[in-house]
Amino acid sequence: MKPYVLGIDIGGTNTVFGIVDARGAVIASGSIKTAKHAHLDDYLTELHAEASRLIEANDATDKINGIGIGAPNSNYFNGTIEDGVNLPWPTPIPLAKLVSEKFGIPVAITNDANAAAIGEMTYGAARGIKDFIMITLGTGVGSGIVINGQVVYGHDGLAGELGHMIVKRNNGRLCGCGRTGCLEAYCSATGVARTAREFLEIRTEPSLLRNIEIDQITSKDVYDAAMNGDKLAKDVFDYTGTILGEAMADMMLFSSPAAFILFGGLAKSGELLLKPLREALDKNMMTCFKGKAKVLLSELKEADAAVLGASALGWEAKPYVEAIAATLPQGL
Amino acid sequence: MKPYVLGIDIGGTNTVFGIVDARGAVIASGSIKTAKHAHLDDYLTELHAEASRLIEANDATDKINGIGIGAPNSNYFNGTIEDGVNLPWPTPIPLAKLVSEKFGIPVAITNDANAAAIGEMTYGAARGIKDFIMITLGTGVGSGIVINGQVVYGHDGLAGELGHMIVKRNNGRLCGCGRTGCLEAYCSATGVARTAREFLEIRTEPSLLRNIEIDQITSKDVYDAAMNGDKLAKDVFDYTGTILGEAMADMMLFSSPAAFILFGGLAKSGELLLKPLREALDKNMMTCFKGKAKVLLSELKEADAAVLGASALGWEAKPYVEAIAATLPQGL
Repeated sequence: MKPYVLGIDIGGTNTVFGIVDARGAVIASGSIKTAKHAHLDDYLTELHAEASRLIEANDATDKINGIGIGAPNSNYFNGTIEDGVNLPWPTPIPLAKLVSEKFGIPVAITNDANAAAIGEMTYGAARGIKDFIMITLGTGVGSGIVINGQVVYGHDGLAGELGHMIVKRNNGRLCGCGRTGCLEAYCSATGVARTAREFLEIRTEPSLLRNIEIDQITSKDVYDAAMNGDKLAKDVFDYTGTILGEAMADMMLFSSPAAFILFGGLAKSGELLLKPLREALDKNMMTCFKGKAKVLLSELKEADAAVLGASALGWEAKPYVEAIAATLPQGL
Repeated sequence: MKPYVLGIDIGGTNTVFGIVDARGAVIASGSIKTAKHAHLDDYLTELHAEASRLIEANDATDKINGIGIGAPNSNYFNGTIEDGVNLPWPTPIPLAKLVSEKFGIPVAITNDANAAAIGEMTYGAARGIKDFIMITLGTGVGSGIVINGQVVYGHDGLAGELGHMIVKRNNGRLCGCGRTGCLEAYCSATGVARTAREFLEIRTEPSLLRNIEIDQITSKDVYDAAMNGDKLAKDVFDYTGTILGEAMADMMLFSSPAAFILFGGLAKSGELLLKPLREALDKNMMTCFKGKAKVLLSELKEADAAVLGASALGWEAKPYVEAIAATLPQGL
């Protein structure tokens, strides 16, 4: 087996990639802008050029065993990015096939949250834990579910979309997925900003957040205000943590994980989020599960986590074959 | 390997047992009353006596490979029935140990819904399906989750309690588990009867159900009235099917099963339940999963299903050992 893998994390704004060795050290990394390319071909050409430059500069030519990619709505089984995703190109995208052809190296893909779960299991807070649920709290809410040491892909490769559990059945917020009331519409970074705007409109008390143009408020502003003792901002985190804890009590019923691992910008809010979350989780937990699941924070550096997780898939990537092609939607 | 297994299904009212061969034929079966024994010892003594009589009568002495038991709140890993269960004896109950000592045969246990899932996978509607969720609609709502051909037990052996997903976050009905708003409080046979009582109290229209003493109404009465064209009774099934379909759309996000399999008395309501269920499932499904999961009815005869499912565990039962004893709660 060759000594390195290439991990690629494709986000809506940036694409980050890195050369990783068998012990999980990131030898070198780079990035390109995802959003600047209106055409997928141009994007792939730049990705190939920049990654190849990195590989050559690190004397890794012909030493890459496989490429692992984390990308939104990715199907592990057929290697495509499916419909309904925040990328500038038409979907579905047969990404594993296209990247494999560009690089001449086997490629495996999965969604970013599954990649993070694999990274956490291999190098982070989930080492030695065989049953856990990874929850990524970023622009959206993603999840990667691990049962008995295996990532759950489901019958079609798309399992683990817990960010779209319905937490408000009636009169819920519109979610990016087109439905209403999803967990993601409340407990993502954008959800926190939305809650702050709602609270500012409904309530009349003073708040540090009133010094900011209401449409410009970010979750970081809410965090800063809360850390400065702002009551309304703290209430936003209470509201967010409570909804997330309630949802996690329901997740517990499914796979009875030994731990939840929180990852992403919002997870860094510390006790502001964790205190109401733990309280709601405990209060809503079915008796037989009470006190059993730990709530842990990711132990991977955020800069490396996505690339590390994606890269781990590179060790198991298989050459692209026609058997896989047969499972692709017609015409790809 | 010996040619038979003994399957035992322990319900709150009856305990059913049967001798099953390797092809899944129930050679002979019997039953005793669970509820009539105030003391566990007396219950186990009668179970042993009756099952032994059946075994002798069928020339199966020394031909039983193992015993598989389906029982509520059972922990597959340590062989105990855990707290919070509708049985007449104090819990936890180290059932695998006790039954194994009585019979001198290895015993494995799991909850009744997991046992039904195993039965369905081995002999029923889930043959050849590797990812499915079994939902049992009886006095309560149980679930058995199969991912990649394996029953999901979770880190503690208690996974798959989807009957206790919260479907009404505010002002929900009290559930037998002590919490409020659980799926089981709405979509079980008792939930259907509760809904009928609520509708009869809130609404003023005539209904065939008004001919029955309100506290005596059962789900069977509601079914009969609906089949006779009673509008209120039909609305009860619409309400029930809608809530179940909405919950199933959330379950889909977790493991992306290829099928849901419905089992139990209420599943026999046919299109009365299935039509609103399918509509709600489709309406609430995240786009990427739409149209992917079949909704199937159990193909096992209800009389045999529980025993068949439980019996399948008998093939993998291991002798009770101290390593397992060490995992039991203290004092057992």
